Amino acid sequence: MTASGSLTVVGLGPGDPQWLTPAASAALAAATDLVGYRSYLDRVPATPGQQRHGFGNRSELDRARLALDLAAQGRQVVVVSGGDPGVFAMAAAVFEAVEHGPPAWRELDIRVEPGVTAMLAAAARVGAPLGNDFCAISLSDNLKPWATIEQRLRAAAAADFVIALYNPASMARPHQLEDALQIVAEMRDPDTPVIFARAVGRPNERIKVERLGEAGSVIADMATIVVIGATTTRRIARGGGAVPYVYTPRSSGTRC
Amino acid sequence: MTASGSLTVVGLGPGDPQWLTPAASAALAAATDLVGYRSYLDRVPATPGQQRHGFGNRSELDRARLALDLAAQGRQVVVVSGGDPGVFAMAAAVFEAVEHGPPAWRELDIRVEPGVTAMLAAAARVGAPLGNDFCAISLSDNLKPWATIEQRLRAAAAADFVIALYNPASMARPHQLEDALQIVAEMRDPDTPVIFARAVGRPNERIKVERLGEAGSVIADMATIVVIGATTTRRIARGGGAVPYVYTPRSSGTRC
Repeated sequence: MTASGSLTVVGLGPGDPQWLTPAASAALAAATDLVGYRSYLDRVPATPGQQRHGFGNRSELDRARLALDLAAQGRQVVVVSGGDPGVFAMAAAVFEAVEHGPPAWRELDIRVEPGVTAMLAAAARVGAPLGNDFCAISLSDNLKPWATIEQRLRAAAAADFVIALYNPASMARPHQLEDALQIVAEMRDPDTPVIFARAVGRPNERIKVERLGEAGSVIADMATIVVIGATTTRRIARGGGAVPYVYTPRSSGTRC
Repeated sequence: MTASGSLTVVGLGPGDPQWLTPAASAALAAATDLVGYRSYLDRVPATPGQQRHGFGNRSELDRARLALDLAAQGRQVVVVSGGDPGVFAMAAAVFEAVEHGPPAWRELDIRVEPGVTAMLAAAARVGAPLGNDFCAISLSDNLKPWATIEQRLRAAAAADFVIALYNPASMARPHQLEDALQIVAEMRDPDTPVIFARAVGRPNERIKVERLGEAGSVIADMATIVVIGATTTRRIARGGGAVPYVYTPRSSGTRC
């Protein structure tokens, strides 16, 4: 092992390159090796001499182990992730690989560069729906039982958190988002605003604000973030067919 | 009202200018007027001809109303906030002012620029503690009853969310963080890692990882973010007195 190797986990943000921090850009440009999901690597500007190690959609732990192995050989490695790498993304996979890997991996210089996670960009597009206490839940159940997800949805709804849903649906589980919305709908008014933000910051971005009572039929995919308002979340109508503003007041109960 | 006025809410990120997105920097540089808490304005590089409207620590709604008023007069206004402006920050105050203000304010061009919120930077410093479902709770009770905060803490602990605490303590309420940790400690192992991240990204940054059983005595202030691990959150010891890595595996229950 060469002591000078390093591994940095970088998220590309939700999509718009103008949301990538200078620290993340600098890490990407300084890397000798980029490791990541192929479609993320395609979004990184080319740097001469840099090696790229592209992977498929699954295989997070394989990516992490290759990256650690390269860093242990003295390379300056960046693991390329989406959004913020610490939120339902590659950073946890890297540390999982470290914990269960050779002891030398623990002594590597491993860093995580924070970034703009998708729910923040989705929220910004409509106003400030995350303006009071909120939670983030991944609906992907290939890593945890659906019963755990259900329990968290019920707890979050009962305690009146704004709820951000990541990975809301895939072809393998088309009905889970509908089920999740139904659980929350048992405890919240049908008029509660629900934001569907698809591909935020990319050319095909699409933002909708629906009522919870009718949100079950909206089509979502893995590129969509869904934000369900709390009981205090407000909608401000605007003229000219514009998407309404949605915000959650900082205070609970009282109006200013 | 001049139609060409605009209002953009920008967060400065947790502290390191390298975490400020290019989109946020561009908005700050293009503004004719900056409105914000004085110590945030002091962190923004000077732009010739730009007017600055500094405020004290409270007065969020006054700041928002002045900014809206200036935008309605045709100015290009940026409201300067900390972190991500949508998370326990100025964006919600702006939309609260819009809802209760003159109808013309609804037709203004109002944008929110997403940013890196403090919990993401705090998490990145120690690994990936937010790698699975998590929630964010502000402990400040000048805007909501403490009973609401307690209820959310209990719900989040029972449903095994990682819990990020914003505004954990101030001189006016020194015991609330201790009370909050006690509530979670009733449902989680005393060995659960608790991260205290103060002034992340600034020269006086200080990061500690404590055990939940002993975390109550740690001093925190308004510049501190506290992240309480879930039951699945893991600590990876390192040599040489380094802060351990902390991460929450993407999967619940099973180890890889």
